[in-house]
Amino acid sequence: MSLLVVGSVALDTVETPFGRAVDALGGSATYFSAAASLFHPVQVVAVVGDDYPLEGLDFLRTRGVDLSGIARKPGESFRWSGVYSYDLNTRETLETRLGVFAEFEPELPPSFREARWVFLGNIDPELQWHVLDQVRAPRLVACDTMNLWIDIKRDALLKLLSRVNLLLVNDAEARQLSGEHNLLRAARWIQRQGPEYVIVKKGEHGAILFMPGSIFFAPGYPLEEVFDPTGAGDSFAGGFMGWLAHADSTEPDEMRRAMIYGSALGSFAVERFSVERLVGIDAAEIAQRVSAFRDMTAFQCHESMEAHAG
Amino acid sequence: MSLLVVGSVALDTVETPFGRAVDALGGSATYFSAAASLFHPVQVVAVVGDDYPLEGLDFLRTRGVDLSGIARKPGESFRWSGVYSYDLNTRETLETRLGVFAEFEPELPPSFREARWVFLGNIDPELQWHVLDQVRAPRLVACDTMNLWIDIKRDALLKLLSRVNLLLVNDAEARQLSGEHNLLRAARWIQRQGPEYVIVKKGEHGAILFMPGSIFFAPGYPLEEVFDPTGAGDSFAGGFMGWLAHADSTEPDEMRRAMIYGSALGSFAVERFSVERLVGIDAAEIAQRVSAFRDMTAFQCHESMEAHAG
Repeated sequence: MSLLVVGSVALDTVETPFGRAVDALGGSATYFSAAASLFHPVQVVAVVGDDYPLEGLDFLRTRGVDLSGIARKPGESFRWSGVYSYDLNTRETLETRLGVFAEFEPELPPSFREARWVFLGNIDPELQWHVLDQVRAPRLVACDTMNLWIDIKRDALLKLLSRVNLLLVNDAEARQLSGEHNLLRAARWIQRQGPEYVIVKKGEHGAILFMPGSIFFAPGYPLEEVFDPTGAGDSFAGGFMGWLAHADSTEPDEMRRAMIYGSALGSFAVERFSVERLVGIDAAEIAQRVSAFRDMTAFQCHESMEAHAG
Repeated sequence: MSLLVVGSVALDTVETPFGRAVDALGGSATYFSAAASLFHPVQVVAVVGDDYPLEGLDFLRTRGVDLSGIARKPGESFRWSGVYSYDLNTRETLETRLGVFAEFEPELPPSFREARWVFLGNIDPELQWHVLDQVRAPRLVACDTMNLWIDIKRDALLKLLSRVNLLLVNDAEARQLSGEHNLLRAARWIQRQGPEYVIVKKGEHGAILFMPGSIFFAPGYPLEEVFDPTGAGDSFAGGFMGWLAHADSTEPDEMRRAMIYGSALGSFAVERFSVERLVGIDAAEIAQRVSAFRDMTAFQCHESMEAHAG
């Protein structure tokens, strides 16, 4: 029941109010794997340049992550650099150097083609389509995207959605894609394009999972100090998909748990630069945070409400 | 165990993308009472002009609301008019005519002075102080405020907070009052000024209750159509305080339930103009919405998490 991720493995230079990290491990596939591998082995498809410090990914190997799908090409690795505002709510991209990522054509090693759980990280929807062509019989395909692709590859993205079971977007992207301001309408619109599940990520305000017959809401975990928001969304996706692959189920109860594990991993990821927080994390810490989520949302209904009404 | 509210009873002229209401029943005490009285009788202290259509409040009387604290003065009632943006996220005030509200000096009838549950609606903090001087032995004092008072009556507000058990503010107000951008820090700062409870309202993103040892998060109820957001916060406060007064308890479990009843009533209030939706509502509808909140947030923890970590 393998779990496949296709995305970027990059080097990030990030400045936040709390400090600066230079050429730190980054990219959607890196964050995803760092989170997902806490629950289930992962197969990674990506491309890096000959300058990439692959030894930085050794912690993934020890968790059973198969990195044989990372192609190493002559040239520079994908580099992104950005600076966050004082409140961490906005960020400015200083530089994007695609390097060998510009020519990324994801090719799956034969053993990856049997993947049952597939996460298409945020890359060109035409490449995401090309990945799906190589996967024989996926059980659940989840897909991320961004404003750029909604702008310039809208048709390819809509076509792709017919093959996607779950779309992960933030609230702005859900609105942009659907043309609906109301999030509930936006999600229902997206569901009509194909995905039976839509996750709308709202940063500090949490995330909402729209299922065919119900809605599940996971709050944002309240942190006194958000250190570096980079990778929160991909860590969320990793926690979510990692849990589903581990549970080997898409039952609503497991989807709900996956939302909480995703939220927990997203909240850990932002506590330090890069994947630092996800490297040494242990099961007890994760379980503790999941309990905190439960404590934040649990309440008992009364069987009857003795109201004065009527 | 009476529940007292002091606030405005006003006439609102509201324009939303869905229509326009002219001189509709409005004001913090009106919305609060319309929601709270579904759970517990309410005593209202307010002032209106001789033009106020008091018969509009008859539905409150039938629920046991004591309106004898509403002073009727010669002159015009408080009128507010505003227009909402197409997405209902911002509103522009077109006109505020205070009328007799400008001279409001809340005087409690003798029978109101034994109130145990007190809600100080959004009025000048000096008047809120004056109200507390008249209440003999309140069990829980909750208080609303706004950016205006944080701006121009900051000292009076901070002084008041030492006598307040629960402050209700929106996220922008919590940040403005505390000088902290991070909401968790902002809430902890406010708690250090006196209130052991802080509720931060985040509109469509829900509301967070900060208690001494824990945090409870209530999501926003996803509506396909928000008709008129006016009064959502006061209806929330009414549902919250009405439930506590009914339960006659500040146990954490009841505080959590109160958050859900508050959220439910806030979500009903915005479905129509003015208090229209709260007039004919019945207990079954409320119970149904509370169940929906539960369904949106409930998940089961595993006793142990069989992670790959470590």
